Amino acid sequence: MTNLLRMSPEELRGYHAQARTRYEQFVARGVKLNLTRGKPAALQLDLSNELLGLPGRGDFLSGTIDCRNYGELQGLPELRALLAPVFGVSADRVILGENSSLSFMHDAVAFSLLKGNCDSERPWHQEPRIAFLCPVPGYDRHFFICQEFGIDMIPVPLSDAGPDMSVVERLVASDPAIKGIWCVPKYSNPTGTVYSEATVTRLARMPTAARDFRVFWDNAYAVHHLTEERLEIANLDAECARHGHPNRAFIFGSTSKVTFAGGGVGIFAGSKDNVAWYLKRIEKRTLGGDKVNQLRHLRLLQDTGGIDRLMDRHRAILAPKFAKLLDEFDAQLGNTGIASWTRPKGGYFITLEVLDGCAKQVVKLAKQAGLELTPAGNTHPHGNDPRDSIIRLAPSFPDLNEVSQAAEGVVVSVLLACSEKLLAA
Amino acid sequence: MTNLLRMSPEELRGYHAQARTRYEQFVARGVKLNLTRGKPAALQLDLSNELLGLPGRGDFLSGTIDCRNYGELQGLPELRALLAPVFGVSADRVILGENSSLSFMHDAVAFSLLKGNCDSERPWHQEPRIAFLCPVPGYDRHFFICQEFGIDMIPVPLSDAGPDMSVVERLVASDPAIKGIWCVPKYSNPTGTVYSEATVTRLARMPTAARDFRVFWDNAYAVHHLTEERLEIANLDAECARHGHPNRAFIFGSTSKVTFAGGGVGIFAGSKDNVAWYLKRIEKRTLGGDKVNQLRHLRLLQDTGGIDRLMDRHRAILAPKFAKLLDEFDAQLGNTGIASWTRPKGGYFITLEVLDGCAKQVVKLAKQAGLELTPAGNTHPHGNDPRDSIIRLAPSFPDLNEVSQAAEGVVVSVLLACSEKLLAA
Repeated sequence: MTNLLRMSPEELRGYHAQARTRYEQFVARGVKLNLTRGKPAALQLDLSNELLGLPGRGDFLSGTIDCRNYGELQGLPELRALLAPVFGVSADRVILGENSSLSFMHDAVAFSLLKGNCDSERPWHQEPRIAFLCPVPGYDRHFFICQEFGIDMIPVPLSDAGPDMSVVERLVASDPAIKGIWCVPKYSNPTGTVYSEATVTRLARMPTAARDFRVFWDNAYAVHHLTEERLEIANLDAECARHGHPNRAFIFGSTSKVTFAGGGVGIFAGSKDNVAWYLKRIEKRTLGGDKVNQLRHLRLLQDTGGIDRLMDRHRAILAPKFAKLLDEFDAQLGNTGIASWTRPKGGYFITLEVLDGCAKQVVKLAKQAGLELTPAGNTHPHGNDPRDSIIRLAPSFPDLNEVSQAAEGVVVSVLLACSEKLLAA
Repeated sequence: MTNLLRMSPEELRGYHAQARTRYEQFVARGVKLNLTRGKPAALQLDLSNELLGLPGRGDFLSGTIDCRNYGELQGLPELRALLAPVFGVSADRVILGENSSLSFMHDAVAFSLLKGNCDSERPWHQEPRIAFLCPVPGYDRHFFICQEFGIDMIPVPLSDAGPDMSVVERLVASDPAIKGIWCVPKYSNPTGTVYSEATVTRLARMPTAARDFRVFWDNAYAVHHLTEERLEIANLDAECARHGHPNRAFIFGSTSKVTFAGGGVGIFAGSKDNVAWYLKRIEKRTLGGDKVNQLRHLRLLQDTGGIDRLMDRHRAILAPKFAKLLDEFDAQLGNTGIASWTRPKGGYFITLEVLDGCAKQVVKLAKQAGLELTPAGNTHPHGNDPRDSIIRLAPSFPDLNEVSQAAEGVVVSVLLACSEKLLAA
């Protein structure tokens, strides 16, 4: 493998010509693939097909609760008890909701704007300014929520151990407009980052100028391992309580990537006061979530062991796709000096970092070759990656053969875009 | 039957003593019944038990859409096509949501406060004051939404043909703070009122000072008939378009009282611009509703005829309960001069009107006798029924024998409370 950064102009011209040829050959194959979103493949969905016939005609009771009728605003106690340990809280501090955690996150922000949270002096919309810290690269849908509501987004660099805590601590200590931070603490979207124990402790301990500050803890990939190692992170909720900030954590999760992406169960968890506050809000909008779907999940998953066994089967499908992409990158981009990538131990994404100023061009070239990637920049607030270098790759949906083709498409797009950039420099 | 209003003081004292004895005899029976909410009975839920096993293990496609995965923000086209005619709109102007229409109503208000609707000049929360017209008696959960968000509620009398339109027209023409009106146009909660064609036309035609005024059209009982006559109301959406106010109607509905109260499908419908506006909002909070549940409903209901057949079976269970209550009232309260009641042709409620100043006492006496009724006043904004005369009765949940006992409990509570009141006068 040749390091492009060390080539003479002439070598680079030759290399660029070759890269163009390879790219055109790829275009000629006429592939049509989509790597934009963390969408499970049909094979993964098949793992939970039993859900399609559950709970079964005669089965509608959870204890004495008729799941078909109104009621149980907080969700079935039995399913809360099953899912609570995954999120490190007790069942009485879990609320089960719709089929996504995103709606919980959206609504937690919307409710705070309209009413304030349980520690707010007034509704957030009455504040002159509201800001959230956004570790970058991060999850675009978090940013879209802030954008929707005019919330300022302050990017914070993400290190291998989580957000740069010295930056976070400094900002939240002095600026009372900063009301929240978005975190995907385990197998982070899009880098696969796992927050260290020190990071979690510092998030729990740090003084904040806003007394109603919240950590939006999007634990989307709590059980979504890609290796045999079932990584655990520190318990933010417990740490917050220990450090005298019991209400700091808003915890989010769902079974969307455990069972059905479109038909799972979303989870909100937090302190006693946070849960009481949240229930007070939703009692105005619902008589309770879909308890039949909750019962259905209870019957399928049965216990924490059931979740683990199911996630092992997801891993058996997903891990080879990640390996395929990483192997291709190692083989074809290794030591070129123009790209690096993360090696996630879980979650749904790989982050590819290319030469500054090349990410948009790579995505554009890939698109022209029939390969849809997440728009460059989406990993940053307002779609603005200041270095234009980060690309999010989602290998879950295509099959293994398609992932292999996609890898080739990404590689040739990177080689062409970056050699072009270097030539122009 | 003796008219209490025409009794001599002595006759009244004797009558009151008898009423107390009857009441005490009822208390001694130790019944424990709940008539508070419009909750379907288990027998009604049984009608849709097939849902518990649907769509079935191998069935997850609607056309080419994999219902298990993410996507289809607006809901399955096939189910939209099935439900659209019930609400008098085309399928492209329907959004399918969670398991309740209440969340659509709540969110339509919340989104308007945070963002304004598609005709607003600014978010409603930036207005000095927001007000809604509330036909009374009305649905408490509508009022709770307004209360949650500090929206002023202006009561408007409900006539046999719907809200008093001369009052409505006068108010909305002059006050730009009035942004909406709550309507349950068919078999209204709690009176059973059916809006006349003239009412619907006037709602559609009337000039409003607020250009972003909306009719919140909670068509909760669109197919919930209690007689063989399948009453139709005028099409508000079409009328609004005809009168140059195409965006005026926000239409809400659900299958909660068609299939499972806790596991149905909610519906929002409106003009093209309203639907586009609403989709723009929810694309920040969800990747689409639970399509597996939508498919399940498609398989169960199959077509509009399927809905009608199912609703006939609900009627067979519900109508005798309503008849039982009305027969008891006729027999025991008729011509007493102290009470009157509605005879709904559909929906879930009977409104009982008692002597001014007696409703709270009736509910209190009933409660002491083991019979839970909706708190008196709940039919009015802020729980304030100025005449303290309206009681909402929900006979759906108890079985027929229990409804019979409940009727007796209501009757004896009314007789005691009202004779007491007359004695004290």
